[in-house]
Amino acid sequence: MKDISRFKNIKCFIFDVDGVLTDGSLLVTEEGELLRRMNVRDGQAIKYALETGFDVAIITKGASRGVRKRLEILGITHLYDAVIDKRIAIQDLKNELKVDKTKCLYMGDDIPDLAVRDEVSIFTCPRDASPQVVDVADYIAISQGGHGCVREVIEKTMRAQELWPLIL
Amino acid sequence: MKDISRFKNIKCFIFDVDGVLTDGSLLVTEEGELLRRMNVRDGQAIKYALETGFDVAIITKGASRGVRKRLEILGITHLYDAVIDKRIAIQDLKNELKVDKTKCLYMGDDIPDLAVRDEVSIFTCPRDASPQVVDVADYIAISQGGHGCVREVIEKTMRAQELWPLIL
Amino acid sequence: MKDISRFKNIKCFIFDVDGVLTDGSLLVTEEGELLRRMNVRDGQAIKYALETGFDVAIITKGASRGVRKRLEILGITHLYDAVIDKRIAIQDLKNELKVDKTKCLYMGDDIPDLAVRDEVSIFTCPRDASPQVVDVADYIAISQGGHGCVREVIEKTMRAQELWPLIL
Amino acid sequence: MKDISRFKNIKCFIFDVDGVLTDGSLLVTEEGELLRRMNVRDGQAIKYALETGFDVAIITKGASRGVRKRLEILGITHLYDAVIDKRIAIQDLKNELKVDKTKCLYMGDDIPDLAVRDEVSIFTCPRDASPQVVDVADYIAISQGGHGCVREVIEKTMRAQELWPLIL
Repeated sequence: MKDISRFKNIKCFIFDVDGVLTDGSLLVTEEGELLRRMNVRDGQAIKYALETGFDVAIITKGASRGVRKRLEILGITHLYDAVIDKRIAIQDLKNELKVDKTKCLYMGDDIPDLAVRDEVSIFTCPRDASPQVVDVADYIAISQGGHGCVREVIEKTMRAQELWPLIL
Repeated sequence: MKDISRFKNIKCFIFDVDGVLTDGSLLVTEEGELLRRMNVRDGQAIKYALETGFDVAIITKGASRGVRKRLEILGITHLYDAVIDKRIAIQDLKNELKVDKTKCLYMGDDIPDLAVRDEVSIFTCPRDASPQVVDVADYIAISQGGHGCVREVIEKTMRAQELWPLIL
Repeated sequence: MKDISRFKNIKCFIFDVDGVLTDGSLLVTEEGELLRRMNVRDGQAIKYALETGFDVAIITKGASRGVRKRLEILGITHLYDAVIDKRIAIQDLKNELKVDKTKCLYMGDDIPDLAVRDEVSIFTCPRDASPQVVDVADYIAISQGGHGCVREVIEKTMRAQELWPLIL
Repeated sequence: MKDISRFKNIKCFIFDVDGVLTDGSLLVTEEGELLRRMNVRDGQAIKYALETGFDVAIITKGASRGVRKRLEILGITHLYDAVIDKRIAIQDLKNELKVDKTKCLYMGDDIPDLAVRDEVSIFTCPRDASPQVVDVADYIAISQGGHGCVREVIEKTMRAQELWPLIL
């Protein structure tokens, strides 16, 4: 586990889609259409992060018009899909956003995500990530993919910065 | 935990949708359509409540034609969706139904629900609600969102009033 | 628990749909269409039962063209849906099939199912049935609704009669 | 458990669909269309296996255009569906691929799969397979059907042959 104080510097969240923003399942229709399972509270946290001025970006090897549409409705504007090499994509993203490594948190769940590990300050994964990813993660979420792991790292970061909403 | 005898006074159930009447998942199609997962036995309990003369209302920030249709078929007529401020919506509802705070039970699962806490007699949540909601709930259901939590609070209330069906 | 030897006399299986042949969830599309979750191995067992000469019937308060289609493909011909009173439906079924009470096993999960309890020899339920149903069941399956409970009671019955396929 | 060194000889993976590549659930629409639940990481492992020169084949009693489409996109070319007798299908497959029994690993979850047991070197099943299948399996995956069991046996085999990707 890297120094927890790193969460205080994060300004940019970068998420993989399948297994992170979804539970890794694909519902296949008879036409071959794929449905993905996302989580309402992850969406709520992404909204809070964006409203407070954080950047939220997506880098995925897959591509789904539906997921793209859902994420755009949440307000995410930095969407890299059909990505071949995630390391290059994240370098492009950092240039575009003018943020350096120390400000970036990434969450992924599988082997292709390992390529970005040295490009971010905090490399995180859901609890049910592949063992190879769990082994090298700086932070392992208590929550599983598609079941609040995105919410968990956003909330943890925003609480460290005293930016998480405490309405009552 | 507030005094359990409060359940005897409840005449109006008010439910959030995502994470309460659903399990908080969103199935996203390639067209960006969202499918929500509801529960048959929750529906059965809502029917019993309506048939016995309880009011059942919905207050949600989201909006889904499909959920609206399903709830209307169950007989729910008080549906506030695309709500910005839940506190105002619940005040409108109480005026419309001419019920005061002591007659109202609310169930919600996340931060926006906290705004209505002082507007009802019993503020409840599913077992898997956000920690901030669990912390202040008067009653935490044993069941999770979309898995019978609505049934549980309706049954508990109707049993307290000896109105739950005991057919055999 | 009634005498286990009763399983030896069963010739007719009668199942409820929601919460028994399905897991009790309803996936709601934006058009209000409802999708139900069934189980492949339950279907396999229904096929074995029908091929061996058992009757398999469905009695449900609900109605779904899709479920009807799926069950007809499995070979079920006795389908009572949109049923108001399950007791009357099961009496009609027994007349139609010319079977008496001692030959019938029923599986249901909720309050409306209690009405048929005295109409069958073995009244069963999935593990996750409503407590009121669990309390009076002759046999409680280890499996949950939509997760093999139908398979379990068919297999148990056919094994008691040495009719379950033991291919190898 | 057969000798673990057998994994070193495997060159051909053969999978059942329902309960193995899916979780055994069938989502039924009102039109009777069936949706199946597959797993992204299983797909990733199939891709790795194919890229490294393994054969990957499917033998299923069922038939789903959607699953076929998904599997073809992953690169699988040997798809036997609507199969009556799995033993004959697997014999045809071995002839077609010119592989003998010692090079074949099979994974299935239910009674019809038992027919192929003697046709392969390693007969495997997911953790939640039918007890009759678990009883005779050479290897029982830790993972369940549709939740990574395919990934598990592919990874295990490729690691035994030092072919699994260890990117970092």
